[in-house]
Parts: sequence; structure tokens; C-alpha cells
Amino acid sequence: MKKLSRRSFLASTSLATAAVALPVPVDLEKGKKNVFIHHVYFWLKNPKSEADRAKLMEGLEALSAVPTIKMCHIGTPADTSRGVIDSSYAVSWLCFFKNKEEEEVYQTHPIHLKFIADCSHLWDKVIVYDSEGPKR
Amino acid sequence: MKKLSRRSFLASTSLATAAVALPVPVDLEKGKKNVFIHHVYFWLKNPKSEADRAKLMEGLEALSAVPTIKMCHIGTPADTSRGVIDSSYAVSWLCFFKNKEEEEVYQTHPIHLKFIADCSHLWDKVIVYDSEGPKR
Repeated sequence: MKKLSRRSFLASTSLATAAVALPVPVDLEKGKKNVFIHHVYFWLKNPKSEADRAKLMEGLEALSAVPTIKMCHIGTPADTSRGVIDSSYAVSWLCFFKNKEEEEVYQTHPIHLKFIADCSHLWDKVIVYDSEGPKR
Repeated sequence: MKKLSRRSFLASTSLATAAVALPVPVDLEKGKKNVFIHHVYFWLKNPKSEADRAKLMEGLEALSAVPTIKMCHIGTPADTSRGVIDSSYAVSWLCFFKNKEEEEVYQTHPIHLKFIADCSHLWDKVIVYDSEGPKR
């Protein structure tokens, strides 16, 4: 288990040079511990349209080029069904940023504005959860 | 930007040997592309209790020892406030697993059962989003 705690940062910074080409979620080079997580869930206007889902995922693929994104992942609901699980959304978009400022750069980046212009007609609802940590 | 796509996996697998000690979210050694993302948001029974929030985060810290967790992160709401953002939760718990089977191991692991026994009295509501990808 690799956890984004101060402990694992300290343990891993010595390998920072080897890590720059890997999908690491944080700024290992500077040994900083904060990570800003932006997780967006999309519900489609046409929830049964696989074509619309594919278009949205294609848009997210293009969106992933925003340079302040440290790591991102495009997902769809997993095949799990306990009572607390919400699997009603169509697409999950998870991004890691170094901090709030870099997420703000993403929000107004031309690639993001193009994504909204190209794809916002596809979704009916969006929920965003932004989190940061560890803050202890 | 490091994206969990087939492309970046292929690009990064040659560095797998150097990567094993880093907080990488996927099984680079085997070059597999799937990742199972389990994201849980907790709302406290006493939302203003910093002590309860700290207890929950301490419980999650212990929970992070479940061996099938590839990477995890304990977060609190970021200081963002656009209309689509839900910042009403108290704690975010994000875990990466190799696949659904490894997440099922986590669900029934003694460490997880102990976490539920120790901490479930603290929360009022939980929403879980499980996602997998890329599936394209």
C-alpha cells in the first residue's frame, strides 16, 4: 500500500529523479505533501446513449492535456451494488493537482473551456467533490 | 500530465523496476491498464466536531494498512465553491485497487471490519462511488 502521507513522501523523495516519467500523483521532486483532488461525476442527458458517453469520454481524453493536471483517470461505474454506492452516474473524471492554484489554472485553461463548449450539451447533471490533504 | 491510459502505461512500463517504491496507482510491473477507484465521502453525525473528524481520519489512517490498497488518500473539502461543487461532506477517502476482486478483499478484511466497528458511530451518511477504467 502506498499512501500519500508525510511518511511515504519522505520515504520516496530519494527516488524522485527516477519518478518523473511515471504517473505519480504529487510533486515528488519538491517533496511536498499536499494534493488537491478534483473528482467529477457526470450524468448524461441521454443516459442510455453509449454514443454520448463515448463523446464525453473523448472530450475528457482531450481535456487531460491541461498541463497542471498531475494525474487523471476517466472511469465508468464499477459492477458493485451495496446500498451506499451511487452507480447512477455515467462517467467519472478524477484529477490530481499540486494545489488549489493549479486547479484554478485548469478551470480557466483554453483546453477546459473548449471541453465545456464541446461537451456540456451531453450532460444533465454534474457533481464535483474537491478535496485536499493530508492536513493533519 | 500523467494519465492512466494505455498509452502512458506502455510508455512507463520500462521504468517499472524503478517505480516499485513510489505511490503509483496501478500495477506497473505487469503493465495492466485497469484501475478500480473507490471514493467514499463521509458526513459526520456531529458535523461541527473537529474531534469526531479527527477520530474518523485516524480510523482511515489505520484502514490504509489493508494490503490490497495500491494507493489511498484522506482528504477534507477544499476551499472551492462553484455551484456544482458539493463541499458539505467532512472527509474524503480515496482508494485505488488493481481490480474489483482486490476491492472485495478489502471490504471483508479484518482491518476494514475493525474500522467499521470503531468508527461507524461517527458518521451520519456515506456515499460511495466505485469506478473502473479505462474501458475503451
